[in-house]
Amino acid sequence: MGKNGYKIIGTRPIRHDGVDKVTGRAMYGADIHLTGMLYGAILRSPHPHARIVSIDTSRAKALPGVRAVVTAENLPKASDKMADLGESVVNLRDASNNVMAYGKVLYKGHAIAGVAAINIHIAREATRLIDVKYELLPHVTSVLDAMKDGAPILHEDMKTRSLGVETDKVSNIANHFQHKKGDPDAGFKQADVVIEREFTTEMVHQGYIEPHNATAMWNEDGQLTVWTSTQGAFSVRDQLAELLKISVSKVKVVPLEIGGGFGGKINAYIDPVAALLSKMTGHPVKIVMGRDEVFEGSGPTSGSYIKVKMGATKDGKITAATAYMVYEAGAYPGSPVGAGAGCILTPYDIPNVQIDGFDVCVNRPKTSAYRAPGATNAAFASECVVDELAEKLGVDPLDFRIKNAAKEGARRPDGPIHPRIGCVETAEAIRKHPHYTAPLERSANGKLRGRGVASGYWFNWNGGRSAISVTVNADGTINMLEGSTDIGGTRPSIAMQLAETIGLRAEDINPKVVDTDSIGYTDVTGGSRTAFGGGIAAHATGLALIEEMKNRAAKVWDVPAEEISFADGVFSYKDDEEKRADFKKLAGQIGGTGGSVVCHVSTSPDGSGGGAFATHLVDVEVDPETGKVDLLRYTAAQDVGTAIHPSYVEGQIQGGVAQGAGWALSEEYIYNDQGKMTNASFLDYRMPTALDLPMIETVLVEVPNVAHPYGVRGVGEVPIVPPPAAIANAVYRATGVRMKELPMSPPRVYKALAGSGKS
Amino acid sequence: MGKNGYKIIGTRPIRHDGVDKVTGRAMYGADIHLTGMLYGAILRSPHPHARIVSIDTSRAKALPGVRAVVTAENLPKASDKMADLGESVVNLRDASNNVMAYGKVLYKGHAIAGVAAINIHIAREATRLIDVKYELLPHVTSVLDAMKDGAPILHEDMKTRSLGVETDKVSNIANHFQHKKGDPDAGFKQADVVIEREFTTEMVHQGYIEPHNATAMWNEDGQLTVWTSTQGAFSVRDQLAELLKISVSKVKVVPLEIGGGFGGKINAYIDPVAALLSKMTGHPVKIVMGRDEVFEGSGPTSGSYIKVKMGATKDGKITAATAYMVYEAGAYPGSPVGAGAGCILTPYDIPNVQIDGFDVCVNRPKTSAYRAPGATNAAFASECVVDELAEKLGVDPLDFRIKNAAKEGARRPDGPIHPRIGCVETAEAIRKHPHYTAPLERSANGKLRGRGVASGYWFNWNGGRSAISVTVNADGTINMLEGSTDIGGTRPSIAMQLAETIGLRAEDINPKVVDTDSIGYTDVTGGSRTAFGGGIAAHATGLALIEEMKNRAAKVWDVPAEEISFADGVFSYKDDEEKRADFKKLAGQIGGTGGSVVCHVSTSPDGSGGGAFATHLVDVEVDPETGKVDLLRYTAAQDVGTAIHPSYVEGQIQGGVAQGAGWALSEEYIYNDQGKMTNASFLDYRMPTALDLPMIETVLVEVPNVAHPYGVRGVGEVPIVPPPAAIANAVYRATGVRMKELPMSPPRVYKALAGSGKS
Repeated sequence: MGKNGYKIIGTRPIRHDGVDKVTGRAMYGADIHLTGMLYGAILRSPHPHARIVSIDTSRAKALPGVRAVVTAENLPKASDKMADLGESVVNLRDASNNVMAYGKVLYKGHAIAGVAAINIHIAREATRLIDVKYELLPHVTSVLDAMKDGAPILHEDMKTRSLGVETDKVSNIANHFQHKKGDPDAGFKQADVVIEREFTTEMVHQGYIEPHNATAMWNEDGQLTVWTSTQGAFSVRDQLAELLKISVSKVKVVPLEIGGGFGGKINAYIDPVAALLSKMTGHPVKIVMGRDEVFEGSGPTSGSYIKVKMGATKDGKITAATAYMVYEAGAYPGSPVGAGAGCILTPYDIPNVQIDGFDVCVNRPKTSAYRAPGATNAAFASECVVDELAEKLGVDPLDFRIKNAAKEGARRPDGPIHPRIGCVETAEAIRKHPHYTAPLERSANGKLRGRGVASGYWFNWNGGRSAISVTVNADGTINMLEGSTDIGGTRPSIAMQLAETIGLRAEDINPKVVDTDSIGYTDVTGGSRTAFGGGIAAHATGLALIEEMKNRAAKVWDVPAEEISFADGVFSYKDDEEKRADFKKLAGQIGGTGGSVVCHVSTSPDGSGGGAFATHLVDVEVDPETGKVDLLRYTAAQDVGTAIHPSYVEGQIQGGVAQGAGWALSEEYIYNDQGKMTNASFLDYRMPTALDLPMIETVLVEVPNVAHPYGVRGVGEVPIVPPPAAIANAVYRATGVRMKELPMSPPRVYKALAGSGKS
Repeated sequence: MGKNGYKIIGTRPIRHDGVDKVTGRAMYGADIHLTGMLYGAILRSPHPHARIVSIDTSRAKALPGVRAVVTAENLPKASDKMADLGESVVNLRDASNNVMAYGKVLYKGHAIAGVAAINIHIAREATRLIDVKYELLPHVTSVLDAMKDGAPILHEDMKTRSLGVETDKVSNIANHFQHKKGDPDAGFKQADVVIEREFTTEMVHQGYIEPHNATAMWNEDGQLTVWTSTQGAFSVRDQLAELLKISVSKVKVVPLEIGGGFGGKINAYIDPVAALLSKMTGHPVKIVMGRDEVFEGSGPTSGSYIKVKMGATKDGKITAATAYMVYEAGAYPGSPVGAGAGCILTPYDIPNVQIDGFDVCVNRPKTSAYRAPGATNAAFASECVVDELAEKLGVDPLDFRIKNAAKEGARRPDGPIHPRIGCVETAEAIRKHPHYTAPLERSANGKLRGRGVASGYWFNWNGGRSAISVTVNADGTINMLEGSTDIGGTRPSIAMQLAETIGLRAEDINPKVVDTDSIGYTDVTGGSRTAFGGGIAAHATGLALIEEMKNRAAKVWDVPAEEISFADGVFSYKDDEEKRADFKKLAGQIGGTGGSVVCHVSTSPDGSGGGAFATHLVDVEVDPETGKVDLLRYTAAQDVGTAIHPSYVEGQIQGGVAQGAGWALSEEYIYNDQGKMTNASFLDYRMPTALDLPMIETVLVEVPNVAHPYGVRGVGEVPIVPPPAAIANAVYRATGVRMKELPMSPPRVYKALAGSGKS
């Protein structure tokens, strides 16, 4: 029995796909094997910036076992239009050029050509036989350098858009936008204390275990089928249709199980190449990236430069804040600076705000979404300044946050008004948590310990399309199709909401993620929308099933349908004991009352509903001799709306913290001065393991989302937002040194301590 | 443009699965390959009737590479209850015992045990190492012998059911039933001519090209998935659930393309065995029958003994008729004698009728459905008598049929009243066909030529459940899921009815046959119900889509939905030229008006609607020196209701005639006196090839079915009914000898001619 009067919501049933996953039965992209299948490999640029003078594929084509070679010449000429192909709107020409470079290569690892051969060894060998002549160009990998006059220009025809207007200036700055509220100058004048600080963060990768993969079969009748690991089968379908210039109805995308995505499995990289190779050869073609290709040729998230200025009065009210945010877009425009700017100051109700965002191209892979895109960089900057401000004012950092916290009715810096949200509640939950009042014992071995807090915000995408199609079996169980790929428990979380609505158990629902031919259009599993939007569809499906079951019961019981009631999982007619049945019992009685009971629902919520807030608390230990930071204890409080399956909510929070900790302490793309990433492997790109992390304690704060029938709020993204700032604040309390660069890796921390005489 | 005001119905688009099938891409059961898959083989009884004393599997289990061996002991004990598991109701204990024999074997080829091994060679070798001790019993393979007192009894506990009452008598007669109308004795007294004749037919097989196959994966979490070639995925699901005693919701059946079924791919033979072997080994297990196993271990149709008596007045009115029909059930009760008895006299409106049917067990494979089950045997008997009666009365056989033909309002011998039917129309179509009046030229080489006609009837199952689930793409095309496996053009025939309803082209619909988790319960593709019932679901789906599209248009156009009209494929609001759009155009305009447009419909027509009638005309040439009969010309007229896709309707008729001709002339199970089939291969079981048949001309008579919105009538079964009788009547006109045995193979014809001094 769950809480709040729910029977199913709030319980912890075993996930439907659990046994398949732990026994190895689950089908991932690399498990696909088709008769006559060929293997594909991609040739990638060794240079960060160069003009392609010529590509000679003749030697590659002549290699025995090679069946086809494709380059950008084989892709239809893309138009220069913007299209919504997933979580964001992209320029189709850019998307096409990122699939295979046309004219120029813009980063090391940029795909240039694809080969299909009878095995992967021949395919890889053939890529080395493709002769590409390059004219090398100067490159730039730092955003601040890229913004300078005279910087190497990635796109000679790209004009800077500034405050909503396209200028004549050609630069690497794709876009400069601004959010403004009140009068910041006046606000700073009211302040007793004003602090301004600069922060930098490095490019990091989502680090999903499973590399990108795609197997394509382009049939003689023009039907293209692609099996792939993706967060959005329909998004891949749209991308394939646009990039290959074929109708969506000619494309079927079959989403397989996904070995991690975190935002990085929305864009299609190799799918169109596999499709073209299949079309040319008449065979299915499978491409699986290597780990180096994942790092260098997929979509990590932006490094950034952020300057935050904040002022407050002696009694602890923030009067004004400004943020100047510059994000790496990578090779093509489209960094998450917009999202970052929408999140950076949102946990606070500040009367005077100005936020400037800059989307800047650099010779790095095109960035893509990564769990609360842009918000982690942003919170690192703003939450460190908030901490410093509280310290300067002599106020407890949680009290300071609570005093200034955003509440229902406050206006966000980016415009909208907050509905009922749980921002204050998360800070209060940490303040009253035993961890916060527990003494922080001194280290016995001369290491330095400190405790830090930080808050964070993520919008949550309370919209998007979700479809559910169900059939009722004679035993009262339900087969449920959904279009949302399951990246973190989508099957149980949606099934449980359907079960709750109609009075079944979670185990009575058999959820299945199906291909794009088999369900209504469903937007990506991303933006923390899926348990929310899929749940709304499931609830609507449940209501429709109840109506239809009443109609069937009416025939069986020979009474008017409108006089049958449904309550507590039981259909009944007045007080007639003969005319009472729960869903299962009734399902067994309605044979012969028509076809089977079926329902197909597609919903698209209006986007209203509140965002997600979190407040984290961390104890760290810093080794002054090496600069290494260890996490001793971690507690994360989060407004989760209504926790459908608390174990998965906790898991999402723990996973987000783990990724945030990696971003904070060790993960980064390291570029050398030739513009080449030097650590494109899991050995050299250091992600935290279980040995690096303490148990992450979670506190589920439940402030129901007003826009959802069960109060569900997206939970998957916001937990990655506070960790770097919380850890930096803890490092400060331990060492007295404020870290302003991510990652706070041993060399950086050691240098900072040395610079301040602390080591 | 089609006829009768239809735009799509009546046209001949390329079938959706055409390219896949001609290029070899289509996935059939034998194409399945799963990681870690094992191969299964079945041990079958070498004896027609024996008690199983013991089964020792130890030597088989010890063979290296063998992973598991199962026998009936591994099947759950089946209850003695009747269950509807497909096209007919079966006894579960019998069904279980037919999957693997328990206690006794009842026919040569009866499955006894299953083996799973790492390859098929080891699996087969292991079956030979299973030591079965038998106590041989006397056997009986002839129905007339089986009915005699003192015959070997197959089921010692089976009591004969007689005229609706269970008697105390133990015999091989499972059931004797009777249809009676009027007073036959009085009717015969009114007759001027009375004829009584006896007929026998031999057991024949559907002869589908693809053998039975099943691949099962029984997962650790209790979920069983079976990939198989079947006419009814839900029927296989039900059978697996009942025979393995698990919930239907634990079973998913994935129907693959089917290489022919004709009624024989409804019962599950090897599927439960593959499932048990998978459960025991933890691996997927695939079993594919050999051709000998298909003949000896699947479900052919009954041989039969039929006596028909018929009387008519001088002016050509039939006054009375009786039929005494004895059908082989095979090893377990359930021959199609019931259907045969319901069809035998139905083309005629005869005032006094008595039909006695007997379902008799013999030591042969359990029979199953075969295209118009039981009706072909029946028509062979009745239509030969009708021909002889017409001849005796000196009346043209077509005129005689037309004069006595069943019409709307007439009562069928089995009870129901005919609605509007096309019986007379088919006879009239043949009478006015150039073939009927063309002179039959004499053979130049002494062979004998003759022309014969016969009519036939099949009920058509105007009921059963069908489900359709659709999603509308942004380009206005539609993805359509259906539960009906496609054995003869189901995809185009259902898609065309949806296209007609909503004003799209057939090519705009993308039909897909899906697994049992993915669509509402759908009854078997059988009984000639699918184009009818699936079409009703498609029509209902179209109407629902139109309503939803009106709702969406109302939002886009900002007008009330109820004032939007849909006609000629165009949605419009009054005369407003701005507010007009066809389905495709509108589909492109409704983004943002809600989720995607989806619909899931399940329908179950009430079974009303008329049956199918056919009249066939054939010219034969008989070689008196060998007894070989060649078909020179063949014309088949059939009431097809409304021909949705005329090419496939013609194809169904041609295919039915080809099978009927094989049954008539060459096909038969030949048993030796040890009760063993001696011709269990396609070399020895002689099916007609293209070289054996003339072009079969078809005449589509369209008398719309009153129970269907487009007048659709099942067309697939009745064409097999008239051929044996028509050919026998033609042989008589050629030779003066009336053949009363099927097949009319050269030895039988030669013997008959010799007996009458004609050769």
